[in-house]
Amino acid sequence: MFSVRKTALAAALIGATAGAAFADGHANPAVKARQQVMSLYAFHLGTLGAMAQGKMDYDAEMATKAASNLAALTSLDQSMMWPAGTDSGSMEGTRAKAEIWSNFPDVGAKGKALADASMAMKEAAGGGLESLQAAMGPLGGACGACHKAYREPES
Amino acid sequence: MFSVRKTALAAALIGATAGAAFADGHANPAVKARQQVMSLYAFHLGTLGAMAQGKMDYDAEMATKAASNLAALTSLDQSMMWPAGTDSGSMEGTRAKAEIWSNFPDVGAKGKALADASMAMKEAAGGGLESLQAAMGPLGGACGACHKAYREPES
Repeated sequence: MFSVRKTALAAALIGATAGAAFADGHANPAVKARQQVMSLYAFHLGTLGAMAQGKMDYDAEMATKAASNLAALTSLDQSMMWPAGTDSGSMEGTRAKAEIWSNFPDVGAKGKALADASMAMKEAAGGGLESLQAAMGPLGGACGACHKAYREPES
Repeated sequence: MFSVRKTALAAALIGATAGAAFADGHANPAVKARQQVMSLYAFHLGTLGAMAQGKMDYDAEMATKAASNLAALTSLDQSMMWPAGTDSGSMEGTRAKAEIWSNFPDVGAKGKALADASMAMKEAAGGGLESLQAAMGPLGGACGACHKAYREPES
């Protein structure tokens, strides 16, 4: 255990040296928070998507739980999670384009569209597989609209 | 960048070998999800706690935002995040005691107490510094009650 930790520490130190020109987004609590929120979206979307694609048996109760959590998460106030200076041009460890901070009204509208699509999924998810499937399109579209405009491609 | 990634990969491989006896909780989506939820509690509690302790100027609007998010997060249905076999005796990377799985009614009650204390904070946070401070005690108590009973001490 100790040697594993030492190795991880060494890797972290090498990383810190190699990336010295930039702050590390993973060490920024606001960046970490927004990435955790996105990851929790993905956790719940994974369940809904697996059911929609027939990779997991449809379960109305589980689908509703996942969709309810997703609706709550997409309704969080994220204003504290996007401080100025946390874009991909300013730090490592984030793919958030600087355009986010010059287009707040549009970013907010896209976030609202995601919350609305999640709320629609919450209402649809327990109503049968076809109902769930029909709600997946707008939900995936809302995710993609924001990523396409405001997230750097993976390098 | 490439060499940093290679180093991190090497460390991950060494870690995987050293911990081969146990699954890695960090690679388990459910464990990751519950840890992210806890970390998001801490993110918002950090703001409320800093104001309560005078380390940050009291700001009614920001306090209400943080408390509203905390109330939403503590109300999430976590049943999908605690599958059997994800206790600290079964895998690395989690401090969740096996007692959680043999005491679900009590764990649920403690979770409900946290959600209730968070809802009370949501109502109190915007009502002035003393109002926020008064709501911190029950909130911290609810966190601690569950950690004391069901979380392994840091090793």
